[in-house]
Amino acid sequence: MSTAPTKRKKFSSFSTWFDDLVMEAKILDARYPVKGFIIYRENGFHAIENIKTIMEDLLHETGHEAVNFPDVISEDMFSKEAEHIKGFATEVFWIERGGESRLERKLILRPTSETAMYPMFPYWIRSHADLPFKIHQSVPVYRYETKATRPLLRLREFLWNEGHTAHATAEDAERQVQEGVNIYRQVYSKACLSYLMLKRPDFDKFPGAEYSLAFDTWNPDGKVNQIGTVHNLGTNFAKVFNIMFEDRDGARRYVHQTCYGAGYTRILAAIIAHHGDDHGCVFPPALAPVQVVVIPVVFKEREQGILNYARDVYESVRPSFRAAIDERRDITPGEKFYYWEKMGVPIRIEVGPREMESGTPTVVRRDTLERESVQQDKIVEMIRAILDRLEENLRVQSAEKMKESIADVTSKKQVAALLSKRKIARIQWCGSQVCAESLGQEVTGEIRGTRADIQEVPEGKCLVCGGEAKVVAYVARAY
Amino acid sequence: MSTAPTKRKKFSSFSTWFDDLVMEAKILDARYPVKGFIIYRENGFHAIENIKTIMEDLLHETGHEAVNFPDVISEDMFSKEAEHIKGFATEVFWIERGGESRLERKLILRPTSETAMYPMFPYWIRSHADLPFKIHQSVPVYRYETKATRPLLRLREFLWNEGHTAHATAEDAERQVQEGVNIYRQVYSKACLSYLMLKRPDFDKFPGAEYSLAFDTWNPDGKVNQIGTVHNLGTNFAKVFNIMFEDRDGARRYVHQTCYGAGYTRILAAIIAHHGDDHGCVFPPALAPVQVVVIPVVFKEREQGILNYARDVYESVRPSFRAAIDERRDITPGEKFYYWEKMGVPIRIEVGPREMESGTPTVVRRDTLERESVQQDKIVEMIRAILDRLEENLRVQSAEKMKESIADVTSKKQVAALLSKRKIARIQWCGSQVCAESLGQEVTGEIRGTRADIQEVPEGKCLVCGGEAKVVAYVARAY
Repeated sequence: MSTAPTKRKKFSSFSTWFDDLVMEAKILDARYPVKGFIIYRENGFHAIENIKTIMEDLLHETGHEAVNFPDVISEDMFSKEAEHIKGFATEVFWIERGGESRLERKLILRPTSETAMYPMFPYWIRSHADLPFKIHQSVPVYRYETKATRPLLRLREFLWNEGHTAHATAEDAERQVQEGVNIYRQVYSKACLSYLMLKRPDFDKFPGAEYSLAFDTWNPDGKVNQIGTVHNLGTNFAKVFNIMFEDRDGARRYVHQTCYGAGYTRILAAIIAHHGDDHGCVFPPALAPVQVVVIPVVFKEREQGILNYARDVYESVRPSFRAAIDERRDITPGEKFYYWEKMGVPIRIEVGPREMESGTPTVVRRDTLERESVQQDKIVEMIRAILDRLEENLRVQSAEKMKESIADVTSKKQVAALLSKRKIARIQWCGSQVCAESLGQEVTGEIRGTRADIQEVPEGKCLVCGGEAKVVAYVARAY
Repeated sequence: MSTAPTKRKKFSSFSTWFDDLVMEAKILDARYPVKGFIIYRENGFHAIENIKTIMEDLLHETGHEAVNFPDVISEDMFSKEAEHIKGFATEVFWIERGGESRLERKLILRPTSETAMYPMFPYWIRSHADLPFKIHQSVPVYRYETKATRPLLRLREFLWNEGHTAHATAEDAERQVQEGVNIYRQVYSKACLSYLMLKRPDFDKFPGAEYSLAFDTWNPDGKVNQIGTVHNLGTNFAKVFNIMFEDRDGARRYVHQTCYGAGYTRILAAIIAHHGDDHGCVFPPALAPVQVVVIPVVFKEREQGILNYARDVYESVRPSFRAAIDERRDITPGEKFYYWEKMGVPIRIEVGPREMESGTPTVVRRDTLERESVQQDKIVEMIRAILDRLEENLRVQSAEKMKESIADVTSKKQVAALLSKRKIARIQWCGSQVCAESLGQEVTGEIRGTRADIQEVPEGKCLVCGGEAKVVAYVARAY
C-alpha cells in the first residue's frame, strides 16, 4: 500500500522533480530534436484540451466568437505599430523562403496576433451595431527565446487562447477588461490555482497597450509563472490600423480595444507545480484527463469473478465521470496504483475479494491517499463529495503557499535575501523606472507590479531612493 | 417568402458563386494580406470544430491517443527519408532566422508530420506490448503552393487531422488501413458527401508509402477534390528511423506503419460545394453550427406577445438542438430568412401571429424550403424527423451527382471532351506510367487511380497504347 505523499523532492530539487515527472506522467516529451519545442503526449494534451473547453465555454457564454487566423504575419503588417514591433522584433522567427524561391514579402510566425487580426477589423466593423466585437482563438504562438528553454515554462512554441475585442467607448472597453479578468479567474479557480493579480509597471506593459494586468503565480523554485494577461489597448492600435465605426450621432470614431491571453502551456505547468507531490501529478477534478480509475486487485484463484465485479463498478461510474479501468495482466496491482498516482488521477477505486464480498469498493483520493469503503449503490454521490473535498484542499493548499511566499521587506539587501530564499518581496516604491532599474541591477529579480484586485496603501519611503512611497509593489524572479 | 432554391449559379459560374458565398456566409475571409492564407470566421470555424469532434470521437473510440507535435521540423529530420524529401522539398516554407540570428539548424513548417513524429517512435515503442501504437493530431499544415491559390480548395496553410500507427505485423497494418478507411467513411457519411475511393497509381502514391488510398469527390467545376488519404507505409520509414520492437520470440523486428490524413478545410469545401445552392450554404445536421433558428415574425401592434412566444419555442428546442433565436430589430423577418438561408441552417422556425394563436410554429427545411405547421408539444420529434429526411436528401443528391459525373470513354479525344464538360472519365488502362504520362500530355487531367472499394474488371484494350487493359481507371482534373 502506498504511503502518504510528501512534497519534499518538489521543493528541494524542483527542476529534476518537474522534468522527470512531465516525462514519466506522459505530459510531454522534451526530447524533440528542435530546441524549445516539445511534444504534448496523451496525458498532457488531454489536460490542455479540458482546460481549453473550460476556457472556451466561458468565452462563448460571454459572446466571444471562435475564429482562426493564419500562423504567419507579413513583415509590413507586423511593423505597423511602433511599440509593438520594438517589443517583439528580437524574438520572432522569420520565414524568407518557400521551396527554392525567396518570398516576395518576408513572413514571421505569430508571437501574438494583434497585427494579424487588426488589419482585418476595418472590414468587419463599420457601425455601432457591430460593437462590441469579440473574438477569440486557441492557437500556438512562437517566440525565439534566447534564454535557456524549459518544458512548459519557457518554450519557443506554446499553446494559448487569445481574446480580442473592440468597443464604442472607453467605458465599455474598461468593462471588457473586467470581463476578461473574470473569465480567467474562473478558469484558474477550476484549476485550483492561486496567484497575484498585478498591474504591470508602465515600462513593462504590453507593447502598444494603455495598461496591462497580469496573473503571476508561484513556482516551487521561487520564480513566478505568468499564467495570463489582460490589456486595455485604448485607441492605440485603432489609430494605426484605422479601425473606425459610425456612431449613433453619425460621427466616425476610433474603437477602443482590449486583448487578453492565457497560456494553456503555462497553466498546465502551474497545475503540475502547485498540486503535484513526490508520487506524481495531482489533477484538479474539473480538468483531469481521467477522473476515476478502477483497479481490480486480482488474485489468481478467483480472478474472473473480481474482474467482472470491477467491470460492474466501472460501468456504474462511467456515465458520471471520465473513467478508466486498468485490466493489464503483465503488472501487479501495486504497480498500477503507482502508475495512476503518477498520472494524477484524483480517484482510484480498488476492487479485491473483500470489496466484492461486501459490495463496498475502496475509494482512495489522490491528494491525501485517504481510503474509504463505499456502498456501491451510493458510489457516484460519494465520489462527487470526495472530489469536492479534494478540489477544495488543492485550492486551499495552493493559496496558503502563495501567502507564505510573500514577505514585506524594507531594504535592497532584504529583497536579495528573500528572493534567494525563493520568495516574493513586497516593497514600498516611489513608482519610478529609475528606482526599478536600480533595484533590478542589485537583485536578480524585477518589480512585477502592484495589486490590481485590492487597494494597497503605501506607507513610508521608497525602498530604493528613500523618496515618498507611492505604491506597494511585488518583486520576484520570473520565467 | 423565399422561392425554392436552384443550383443554377453554382453550376454555371462556380468560382464566383463559391468565392462570394464563403465570404457572405461568414465561412472565411480571403482578404488576409498574405497569399494562400485565410481567416476562418465564426460560421466556417464552428463547422470545422464540429467535423473535428466527429472525427476525433471516432479516432478515440478506436484507440487513437490525441497528441500535439511542434509545427516545425529540422532540415536533418526532414531529409532522412529519400522519397519523402523528394516529394515535398519544392513545397516547404523555410525558417532560417530567429530575431537577428541565423538559426544553427534550418527549420521547415510541417507539410505533413511523418518526419516530425517517427524520430520519436523508438523512444515510445520498445516491445510487442507497446503495439499497436496509434496517435493522431488535428493541426495546420503548410505547403508552398505555386499554382493559383483558392479559398479552402488550394491554400498554403490548411487544417487537417492526421493519424499515425505502428504494428507488429504486415497483416495488422493492413487491418489498420481498413480501420482508417472506415473512420473516414463515417465522417463523410455525416457530412453527406459522395466520393470515389481510389487506389492511387504507384507513381502517384504518398512519398515513402507502399500504396495510397484516396477519397476524391466531385466539385461543380469538374475538378476533383481530395478529401482524405490512407497510406500503408510498410517498413519504409521504420528502417530509416530505426523503429524496432522486441517480439514475443525475443527477436527485434521493424514495425509496420500506416498513416492517414483528412483535411478539415477540404471537407468543408466539399460540404459547401455539394450541398450549397443559389440561396447559400446548406449544412448537414450533424455538423451544422446552428441546427435550428427561431425567427419571430413581428408586427408592431403585438410585438411583445409574439416575441415572448418565440422565446418559448426557442426554449423548447434549445435542449435538443444547437439553436439560435434572431431578435434583431433593425432588419425585417424577410431579411432574416435570407440571412439564415445563406448561413446554411437546416431548420428555420417562423413564429408569427397565426402561429401564436394556433400554437403551431411553422417549420421550414433549408434544402427544399418546404413548410410544415407543427404542434409545439411535438416540435422536437418533428424536427428530428425533418432533419433525418434532409440529411438523407443531401446524401442522395450528392451521390446522384457523383454518379452522373462519371462516363465511360474509349479514346483520348473522348477523354478530353468529357473533362472539358466537367466530368470524370472511366477508362481501360494497361497500368503503365508511360501511358499515363502520354495521356496527361494530351488532356488537361490525370489518372487518379483505380477503385479500392469494389473490384472493377478491365475489358479490352488500353485507351492509350492499345495493349491489354489491366485495370479500370478514373481520369479527372484535380485541385
